[in-house]
Amino acid sequence: MAQFGIIGSKGRMGQALASAIEEAGHGLAGGVDQGEKPGPLAASCDALIDFSSPDALEANLAAARVAGVPILIGTTGLDDSHHAAIDSAAQAIPVLQTGNTSLGVNVLAYLVEKAAAKLGPDWDIEIVEMHHRHKVDAPSGTALLLGEAAAKGRGIDLADNTVSGRDGMTGQRESGAIGFAALRGGTVAGDHSVILAGNEERITLSHSAENRMIFARGAVKAAAWLIGRKPGRYTMNDMLDL
Amino acid sequence: MAQFGIIGSKGRMGQALASAIEEAGHGLAGGVDQGEKPGPLAASCDALIDFSSPDALEANLAAARVAGVPILIGTTGLDDSHHAAIDSAAQAIPVLQTGNTSLGVNVLAYLVEKAAAKLGPDWDIEIVEMHHRHKVDAPSGTALLLGEAAAKGRGIDLADNTVSGRDGMTGQRESGAIGFAALRGGTVAGDHSVILAGNEERITLSHSAENRMIFARGAVKAAAWLIGRKPGRYTMNDMLDL
Amino acid sequence: MAQFGIIGSKGRMGQALASAIEEAGHGLAGGVDQGEKPGPLAASCDALIDFSSPDALEANLAAARVAGVPILIGTTGLDDSHHAAIDSAAQAIPVLQTGNTSLGVNVLAYLVEKAAAKLGPDWDIEIVEMHHRHKVDAPSGTALLLGEAAAKGRGIDLADNTVSGRDGMTGQRESGAIGFAALRGGTVAGDHSVILAGNEERITLSHSAENRMIFARGAVKAAAWLIGRKPGRYTMNDMLDL
Amino acid sequence: MAQFGIIGSKGRMGQALASAIEEAGHGLAGGVDQGEKPGPLAASCDALIDFSSPDALEANLAAARVAGVPILIGTTGLDDSHHAAIDSAAQAIPVLQTGNTSLGVNVLAYLVEKAAAKLGPDWDIEIVEMHHRHKVDAPSGTALLLGEAAAKGRGIDLADNTVSGRDGMTGQRESGAIGFAALRGGTVAGDHSVILAGNEERITLSHSAENRMIFARGAVKAAAWLIGRKPGRYTMNDMLDL
Repeated sequence: MAQFGIIGSKGRMGQALASAIEEAGHGLAGGVDQGEKPGPLAASCDALIDFSSPDALEANLAAARVAGVPILIGTTGLDDSHHAAIDSAAQAIPVLQTGNTSLGVNVLAYLVEKAAAKLGPDWDIEIVEMHHRHKVDAPSGTALLLGEAAAKGRGIDLADNTVSGRDGMTGQRESGAIGFAALRGGTVAGDHSVILAGNEERITLSHSAENRMIFARGAVKAAAWLIGRKPGRYTMNDMLDL
Repeated sequence: MAQFGIIGSKGRMGQALASAIEEAGHGLAGGVDQGEKPGPLAASCDALIDFSSPDALEANLAAARVAGVPILIGTTGLDDSHHAAIDSAAQAIPVLQTGNTSLGVNVLAYLVEKAAAKLGPDWDIEIVEMHHRHKVDAPSGTALLLGEAAAKGRGIDLADNTVSGRDGMTGQRESGAIGFAALRGGTVAGDHSVILAGNEERITLSHSAENRMIFARGAVKAAAWLIGRKPGRYTMNDMLDL
Repeated sequence: MAQFGIIGSKGRMGQALASAIEEAGHGLAGGVDQGEKPGPLAASCDALIDFSSPDALEANLAAARVAGVPILIGTTGLDDSHHAAIDSAAQAIPVLQTGNTSLGVNVLAYLVEKAAAKLGPDWDIEIVEMHHRHKVDAPSGTALLLGEAAAKGRGIDLADNTVSGRDGMTGQRESGAIGFAALRGGTVAGDHSVILAGNEERITLSHSAENRMIFARGAVKAAAWLIGRKPGRYTMNDMLDL
Repeated sequence: MAQFGIIGSKGRMGQALASAIEEAGHGLAGGVDQGEKPGPLAASCDALIDFSSPDALEANLAAARVAGVPILIGTTGLDDSHHAAIDSAAQAIPVLQTGNTSLGVNVLAYLVEKAAAKLGPDWDIEIVEMHHRHKVDAPSGTALLLGEAAAKGRGIDLADNTVSGRDGMTGQRESGAIGFAALRGGTVAGDHSVILAGNEERITLSHSAENRMIFARGAVKAAAWLIGRKPGRYTMNDMLDL
């Protein structure tokens, strides 16, 4: 049993994290939110879980470093300077940064990479996702994570091969393209399918999230795994042995 | 057993029509293609099936009218002047014009209209389709046909509510929107799904075509049904009693 | 705003009903559970919602009748004597008994009946459902409800045409059969698909429940609809105008 | 370009093989069918492809051995004595025996094994397949092949954990079970889905065959790959580097 500190504790994800911590039999050391300093929380917990905002990242990393506790970072919207700060902190403490903390999504990405590598360039790759009506951007971060896995498996660059949101006179599909399509509606927590379409046969690899708790559970599991590790920058794949 | 004449007989659809005519136990009176006059063919058959091009439409209608035989028109890309020509011919002979001759697709459109009407505006409607890598436009004509059915069921105008090919910062889904997404790859003959997403529940209505023969079979069935009808303009729904 | 009384208030469904009543802006008059008499509750509410057990049905109907309030019955496992008791009570008060209170499932059943009727006997009908690992029976009650709709649309008797749980040397599919298959695993709240498989084309009509609240919401909506109706026995279709 | 001999040349698979050989630019040395001796064909080709019957296996292996040509065996219904005969022949010539020659199905089985291993025993595994109305047995051979892959990934024995064709009062799902369900209808060439259902999330890995040509193409590709190999018993995984 470990004691966790939540940065961004009052948001929807913060509340889900508190539930997941309790569900897993761990303890909640406390939480901080916008405008509060993370130092005292870091000093009183075994690991920090940060789902706050990029602006707060530097202070959160510094607090973890001073206290000598690991930190899991699930914040999205990070740029190069944020990643540099993470790399720097990872020289002193264990840090795991990820765009998706679900066990299933990370295993799916692993399978997509294998499938793309083994099937080869004759199989066209399409990624379609559906989320609730309140989502404001497309494609989803998870769809892009799956696209990166597909591109890596195929040995190509995703940015150079992305076709997103086909509409109108598109012409024939370009060889090597990785297509993205986004559906929005209702209360869907998140469905993703990667379709590999060959000559008269198709493979479809899908993930369906019933609700947001899976992300909280995965984050708690990953943060618990970080405790006692050597300093370094880790990924979900390290934890999941993928 | 009836004798059919095929206009556009050498194309992929023309060949499928010849197979479907034989499969159904009917006879093939003959075929004409680009540059050939349809008059003699019309005079020697019980019904014409036209999957050629909009340019040829006027001559084809005239030939059917002179011969007094019904004509099924599966040609796509028709504009208002073509529809006016069809209306005019339909005063003298039976004419059935349709964007999709598959039995299943037409029944699906009927179900989509019912579902949209019964579920009401709280259920968001999304339409996703997949076709082979050679298709040059999006969304498919069948997706639009299904969108028209959804809009009709809901009592709204499709053109005013279409959102096709979401990509980037889209903002939240607009109430009443009908979304379209297109997947392309492999050799897929045509898959369509209409998703109605409500509050924590979803209904999905799908059609999957294994190959193009279903369109040829439906066309032959519809053309046979036209024989002996009163002059007028008919739809697949008339034939299918939908 | 109406006041509802819940019979079977402490079970999982009873708690979901309390949430749904609050969510819809109605009031909770109270609840009774095993061993408690429903009379006082009936006297203090506008409608009763009964998700208890067949054994309690007679007393619940009597209480509703004495108080002159409508009652919605979602209890499963009813036999002919229970249905006779419901018919009798329905001469004095409005009663709605149903095996599934979800709006989506009832609309799906309506669509399945239409599809089976329009497509005709050449299209084979299969029903597959998935539920969580704790479900102890198969097929689900909802799968059977969908099967009844299919059989009704086709004009056949379900019991005479059911094939459930194929395994081993089954022989070729019998013409007219309605097949059932059950998947179990994880925490799935309830997915149902009705597949109509024709000659080289398929229509699939599916419903997916994200969680159990949809059944509670539908029950509250139906119970509210019952208030002020004439005595009689009603169905979800009456409420949904299907 | 190689010359292939087909054993079982007049059946549906034999005709598909002839098409696939031509499509791939290879040559057809000839074919034999029931009651004909395979010796002369073996002597005149670069590799044999056998989709005939278990009864003919011994004579076919002997003919290949005498001629010193590789043989691909796609025949189903083999027992231990047939496998012993294959092992024996494989000491002298290259032999590849498989239950499924599709590239996609074999890659899917590889992914299923990985997924089962990585996700672990908390994720329930279900396999559902759909085939045309003429198929006489259930589950399909391919479903069993996928079940074997899942069992291998999880480190359990398939036979001890199979639950096929749930119906009636089944009780709760047993931990570790691998469930099978079979759908039959229409003209479906073969759809398979492996569902891994965890705690509020699901991964689904699917394969869809548009028609039987994919099996013929895979068989021809595998037979071509065998030419020039050392004697030994090979699998599709060897050819596909899985």
